[in-house]
Amino acid sequence: MRICILSIGSELLEGSVVDTNSAFIGSELAHYGVSPDMIRMVKDNRQEIVSLFIELSKEFDIILTTGGLGPTFDDITAECLALACQSELILNERAYNHMKEMLERSGVTLRKEHEHQVMLPKDCLLFNNVKGTALGFSMHLNKADIICMPGVPAEMKAMFSDEVIPYLREKYDFKEITYKDMHFLSVPESEVDAVIRSIEISSDTQCIINAGSGKVVVKLRGYNNPEIKKVSDKLKSVFKESYLGDNYTDEAKLIIDILKSQNKTISFAESCTGGLLSEYITNVSGASEVFMGSVVSYDNSVKHNVLNVPDDILMNYGAVSEECAAFMASGVKKLMKTNYAVSITGIAGPNGGSEEKPVGLVYIGVAKEEEIKVYKNIFNGDRQQVRTKSAKKAMLYLLNLLKEY
Amino acid sequence: MRICILSIGSELLEGSVVDTNSAFIGSELAHYGVSPDMIRMVKDNRQEIVSLFIELSKEFDIILTTGGLGPTFDDITAECLALACQSELILNERAYNHMKEMLERSGVTLRKEHEHQVMLPKDCLLFNNVKGTALGFSMHLNKADIICMPGVPAEMKAMFSDEVIPYLREKYDFKEITYKDMHFLSVPESEVDAVIRSIEISSDTQCIINAGSGKVVVKLRGYNNPEIKKVSDKLKSVFKESYLGDNYTDEAKLIIDILKSQNKTISFAESCTGGLLSEYITNVSGASEVFMGSVVSYDNSVKHNVLNVPDDILMNYGAVSEECAAFMASGVKKLMKTNYAVSITGIAGPNGGSEEKPVGLVYIGVAKEEEIKVYKNIFNGDRQQVRTKSAKKAMLYLLNLLKEY
Repeated sequence: MRICILSIGSELLEGSVVDTNSAFIGSELAHYGVSPDMIRMVKDNRQEIVSLFIELSKEFDIILTTGGLGPTFDDITAECLALACQSELILNERAYNHMKEMLERSGVTLRKEHEHQVMLPKDCLLFNNVKGTALGFSMHLNKADIICMPGVPAEMKAMFSDEVIPYLREKYDFKEITYKDMHFLSVPESEVDAVIRSIEISSDTQCIINAGSGKVVVKLRGYNNPEIKKVSDKLKSVFKESYLGDNYTDEAKLIIDILKSQNKTISFAESCTGGLLSEYITNVSGASEVFMGSVVSYDNSVKHNVLNVPDDILMNYGAVSEECAAFMASGVKKLMKTNYAVSITGIAGPNGGSEEKPVGLVYIGVAKEEEIKVYKNIFNGDRQQVRTKSAKKAMLYLLNLLKEY
Repeated sequence: MRICILSIGSELLEGSVVDTNSAFIGSELAHYGVSPDMIRMVKDNRQEIVSLFIELSKEFDIILTTGGLGPTFDDITAECLALACQSELILNERAYNHMKEMLERSGVTLRKEHEHQVMLPKDCLLFNNVKGTALGFSMHLNKADIICMPGVPAEMKAMFSDEVIPYLREKYDFKEITYKDMHFLSVPESEVDAVIRSIEISSDTQCIINAGSGKVVVKLRGYNNPEIKKVSDKLKSVFKESYLGDNYTDEAKLIIDILKSQNKTISFAESCTGGLLSEYITNVSGASEVFMGSVVSYDNSVKHNVLNVPDDILMNYGAVSEECAAFMASGVKKLMKTNYAVSITGIAGPNGGSEEKPVGLVYIGVAKEEEIKVYKNIFNGDRQQVRTKSAKKAMLYLLNLLKEY
């Protein structure tokens, strides 16, 4: 079975939008042991899309398209599919009613122009869109099922997972493979690699190793469950300390669950990360049980007035210093009356660096009751990378502290 | 002239890596009025890559590849290019010396296996890589220049901008075009579309319309400056209120620049957004001149103790209320001694909603000196979407307030 993803939209080729949909589809399909053989992007060009539908439908069994389902003049996926299938384009009532209902709910008036969006190929199969106005649809052409989904990632993701995958599983007998991702914190990739090499892994089991953002991720894939268990058990026993835990792929979620189990609370004081660490933690539903809040102390006046960092510390050591990080952590812990606190202060760049304190220098403080540890880091990369690495590293220090208890 | 981008790497099709390189190349090319006619991703498969090189080189004038230049067994771009061009694969001395120097600089010992990386097609043209060990290279095949670049985004970007673009400009006489992006806030895409349809735009001017994150973006491209001015003037006059302004693509940057010009400062009090608004603002270099800081008052105790929201307000109206939003804004403004303040409090979900206060209900307060306005919103979407929409909408309210003065 051959699968093709076709991402439709001039904005993708012009580079104003990054196509994240294809990667999402690819990673979802991987759960069934299949992967697209081709991913291709095409402009909003009638002739090109129509001839691609015709050509590709001879070569592929499943063609998944994203984009071009909206109400504007350059949304032409339905029209092109009808042309390729030599089918009639008609106003689809179910699609119309869905659109009407969704628009009304968000207070937008239905206009004549919206009708363009629900002109679909006659006899197409529909896929529901719980997050947007445009339903998905599919037609059969030559040997292919052509399934068209919206380009808005949230809409596409929900439709693909809840509607398209069940349809494909039924029709093509997709079987779920065992799919285990193991996350290891603060261990060198080469050490994990050496352990994996020492295990004889049978050829029906795929083992991929990736490193980045302070983590090593081992991906195990296959239908041979005992083999996958053998490998994962071995890794777990060797890297007990740094293993994030079964079912954990997200440090923030693990931090929250550990704090919940300990019945403890936390707060943050952020400078160069500007709220990013708080954002990571509060992105997890349920964070409110343990996360009290944080102070983004961007200006020194806030470090002094709100967090009680002494003026002489700021003057003698500067805001980017071990001393300041320590006072920030203890300051916010006291202010918000929490058991733990984390502080981050550094130079994200591109400006503000010096010989002595270069761009990328970041101090991270972790406080537990009366005890405070401060770690010095020098991160490479641009402003965004330094900020991201700082917030991720802070979660890592915190996890190591939490696991001690 | 037809251009094709070929992204090489199985990880792209399996969805474990998102291809951001193609979008970067597309957006750089757009400045010269050209765009790739095709973007395609291909697995690390010798046969497939070789036949693609041969096929595509008959159809395209420029083929830009990324990925597959590294030292590991699955890095096969050079080998495939040599096969397609029926050229010999030889150890390239300049590439070898560059690799050696870069490895030594980062303290990695040169190993025999590294040599694989510098086995390049004989007589290829080289492109420098200031950020990594693998040089780029190109060969001519049929009608095409095939230019191969590394897959690591930072390396590819530097090589493309500093080496490949100048080469293409010279060889193909690329001329810079007029390139105007217009951002409109909180206006439905269909309304902008209707206005564009009402203007007769000459065919030498390209007009693309995109919507997302509470914004509509209209992109005008071409060499016909009077025509571009005509369209942009029309849009500006119709959507005066919601137009972000010439040269602004980022609300956060505009907010910071207006505040700088007014010599005013700002602070935030965030609840359901958990630091996201602060993160947006501090993502802009130079934010420190106007942004003092913020309080992420996730727990009610922090709203009361740090921001001075009265207990009876929290008890009688709740944390998600107009009243609480107003006190949060005035509280943080006073605490951080700023001219302006913004507050956000709401229910991001998926839990915590009720009949009276549903998931998605968000109050946004904007304070200027003694004056405070609070806006009520009900946002659709999941937790992440509600948070994102809240922070973006807050920037919009703030911008409208700033523009009044």
